[in-house]
Amino acid sequence: MSRFAALLFLFPVPVLAAEQVVHTDPIAPVILGVTWILSMAIVGRFVARRFHQPAVVGELLMGIVLGHVGYLAGGDMVTLLREVPQVFDLMSGMGTAATFDGETAAALNRVLNQPDGGVMLQVAHSVDVFSRYGVIFLLFLVGLESSGEEMRHVGAESARVAVIGVVAPFLLGVLTIQLLTPDLSANTQMFVAATLGATSVGITARVLRELNKEKSREGHIILGAAVMDDILGLIVLAVVSGIVVSGEFALGQVVWHIFLSLAFLGGAIALGPHVLKYAIRFLGRLDLVEAKMFTSFLFVMILAWIANLAGLATIVGAFTAGLILHDSYFHDVFDPEKHVTIRDLIQPLEVVFVPIFFVLMGIQVKLEKLADPQILLLGGGLIIAAIIGKIVAGIGAGKGARRLAIGFGMMPRGEVGLIFASIGKVLGVMSDTLFSAIVIMVIVTTLLAPGLLKWSMNRPAGGSGNAAAK
Amino acid sequence: MSRFAALLFLFPVPVLAAEQVVHTDPIAPVILGVTWILSMAIVGRFVARRFHQPAVVGELLMGIVLGHVGYLAGGDMVTLLREVPQVFDLMSGMGTAATFDGETAAALNRVLNQPDGGVMLQVAHSVDVFSRYGVIFLLFLVGLESSGEEMRHVGAESARVAVIGVVAPFLLGVLTIQLLTPDLSANTQMFVAATLGATSVGITARVLRELNKEKSREGHIILGAAVMDDILGLIVLAVVSGIVVSGEFALGQVVWHIFLSLAFLGGAIALGPHVLKYAIRFLGRLDLVEAKMFTSFLFVMILAWIANLAGLATIVGAFTAGLILHDSYFHDVFDPEKHVTIRDLIQPLEVVFVPIFFVLMGIQVKLEKLADPQILLLGGGLIIAAIIGKIVAGIGAGKGARRLAIGFGMMPRGEVGLIFASIGKVLGVMSDTLFSAIVIMVIVTTLLAPGLLKWSMNRPAGGSGNAAAK
Repeated sequence: MSRFAALLFLFPVPVLAAEQVVHTDPIAPVILGVTWILSMAIVGRFVARRFHQPAVVGELLMGIVLGHVGYLAGGDMVTLLREVPQVFDLMSGMGTAATFDGETAAALNRVLNQPDGGVMLQVAHSVDVFSRYGVIFLLFLVGLESSGEEMRHVGAESARVAVIGVVAPFLLGVLTIQLLTPDLSANTQMFVAATLGATSVGITARVLRELNKEKSREGHIILGAAVMDDILGLIVLAVVSGIVVSGEFALGQVVWHIFLSLAFLGGAIALGPHVLKYAIRFLGRLDLVEAKMFTSFLFVMILAWIANLAGLATIVGAFTAGLILHDSYFHDVFDPEKHVTIRDLIQPLEVVFVPIFFVLMGIQVKLEKLADPQILLLGGGLIIAAIIGKIVAGIGAGKGARRLAIGFGMMPRGEVGLIFASIGKVLGVMSDTLFSAIVIMVIVTTLLAPGLLKWSMNRPAGGSGNAAAK
Repeated sequence: MSRFAALLFLFPVPVLAAEQVVHTDPIAPVILGVTWILSMAIVGRFVARRFHQPAVVGELLMGIVLGHVGYLAGGDMVTLLREVPQVFDLMSGMGTAATFDGETAAALNRVLNQPDGGVMLQVAHSVDVFSRYGVIFLLFLVGLESSGEEMRHVGAESARVAVIGVVAPFLLGVLTIQLLTPDLSANTQMFVAATLGATSVGITARVLRELNKEKSREGHIILGAAVMDDILGLIVLAVVSGIVVSGEFALGQVVWHIFLSLAFLGGAIALGPHVLKYAIRFLGRLDLVEAKMFTSFLFVMILAWIANLAGLATIVGAFTAGLILHDSYFHDVFDPEKHVTIRDLIQPLEVVFVPIFFVLMGIQVKLEKLADPQILLLGGGLIIAAIIGKIVAGIGAGKGARRLAIGFGMMPRGEVGLIFASIGKVLGVMSDTLFSAIVIMVIVTTLLAPGLLKWSMNRPAGGSGNAAAK
């Protein structure tokens, strides 16, 4: 095993060597770059699983290691990937790196002035495109799972936990920033604080499954709240990005963006099923795998695009598509006995594309930016705000449930927090420094949650009931 | 249905409108472009199926329609896609379109000097990358299927049919070019002639399945020969591209490239299984879907890259990976009862990426280049050479089989012929004119084959035996 891992770690060597090779097929460097990132993700995931940690943490840490080793070694490819959100801008402006701030511009110019700078740009662009498709598939699958069992168990308790779980971290976040770095712009403060409100269902669900406590009262409350949190979080994201894009903070803007988000969600939920039924009847001539795959892919992508057109994030559209679409739509036209589910079909895409996103996020972390004591203080403050905010949310649950366990269950920010941060980076309100601090916060909360959740679930429940006795 | 089709056809309108929209998320135009191409592919496939024609023909024709409608309407996006092999070069040179010949350079410069030229370049690059990944998945699946049942039935008859089926069209192709346009370079002549030798297994297999003649003697000979043809064809491709890349035609070069191809195939077949077993044991900690998906994806991509490094086409590596990999490797580590096959996992990728390849190939056809009577004559000559060459191959089958049916079964060039032509285009030996003529040849042979095969299979077999009586 260790020999195999060593082999994979050596992969950057052919990457660098490849820059000297004359490629017959222009796709070859792209294949190499993408495959290399994916290989590193697998190693990260493998190591994480070995230490019983979530895969996302392994992939992020692997990205951080890669980014810093590559950067310190002066690797051009890694330097370009560290600045990857600028790659799109660079291509849009066709080779003018001059519009970026000093340090970034210098790094980009240096790389692009290499003889194979253009080839590296192709690789970076493709890795970036793949990672962005990855997020879309991920949010679609989250939406797909949210539409099922959990939603029906969502009661008043879950709703309270979810709302407090978004509001409390937001307020604590703003408070922390005001105390520590009050000179940040209002937009940035808002974005950072909004990132603290996110919850990653996946990690908590996996821990609960391992503990065999999925069907416990705490389990139902957490999963229900996490699903609502996704929807709330995406609305907050829509509102916050809307304000950022449109310029100034104003109550009218907030109301407008809340309306826009709800109108998109409402419109998609009202019209989506009709469009789907129509499309599926049309595709009835194809076979089931083709029809399901085409329908899912087109539906996700079209909703993602419309969401963007409405000023929302593409992932809001992808999540909404997941909420709406389910396998039963196909039962009218295709034999319901054949059970190739939508999940079965989209999962292969997720397995390949999503790890690329996480590694790329890790690569963009710049620990050297955190050397400033004030930034370290802010980072620490945000982590504490993130933890306390969700513990407070646990109080939203009624008596008789392990409130602390619920708070811990809501704690991991995982991919959702990360996606928020990456959007902030694209919108230009989140500096490299803040982005790096947020990624550290995501890693810390995601790492702490499973252990704390296990510990608190094994304590006796406070109050009268003990639904987890099962 | 027709209303839905109209809706899809109108999709280019938002594409054009989108160029005016300020995108929050830079992936949005890419999503739109890729989704639009895929939508058109689905319509093409649907129409083809309606008229009982192969999907590939529908997708190609849709691409041809799109390319010409967009071109005549002055659509910048379509213009860029028509020149898509140059997009990679353009990015490698970072914005210098000056190295291309007059007409192409003018078109590219015009598009890139638009305010959103850079965004269109991103879209075109992504569509191109997706389509190239598509071919790799396609050839991997072809390889995966070749390793199964058919190979065992391959006898001397299949081998004779396969060899004649590559040699006869090659010789007839060279003869045709010598007669009609002797001024083409030796490399170009060789490449065009090699393209005529390809056989697409998929289309013939589907027709045989529809006729319920898969298990007939003719069916076994055709399918066995088609599989051998794939291998032979890829060796021919490797040799021909090797000669083109290394410059001049020389016997030493031919021998060297045959050796290189066989060494790659042999090396991969000898070492591949060991690497796979080792990797799968390493991945045993992951779940089956992850492990199978990662193994398949990495194995294909690494072999594709090594093939390229060895001077072969990436698709040779992908096909070889398919030949080597099969599900039984996973039985040692994972429960063999769980049957998520590699095919199940790669197929969703194929369903999305492959149609993009075919539409893009269609878009690159430039019918206006065929207006020259001499070119029309050459195109017609190539079609006749392609048909006669494969009918001659049918004679390789022994007595008692429907030789004409075998010839017709080998006739469709489908995706394989197309891939040859696209590589020739990338290598610069195939002009727009020749590429367009070859695509027409692919469409004609692919369209004619099913009907002719049906007709000839229903005639009485010549000679003594009649294995198809079943």
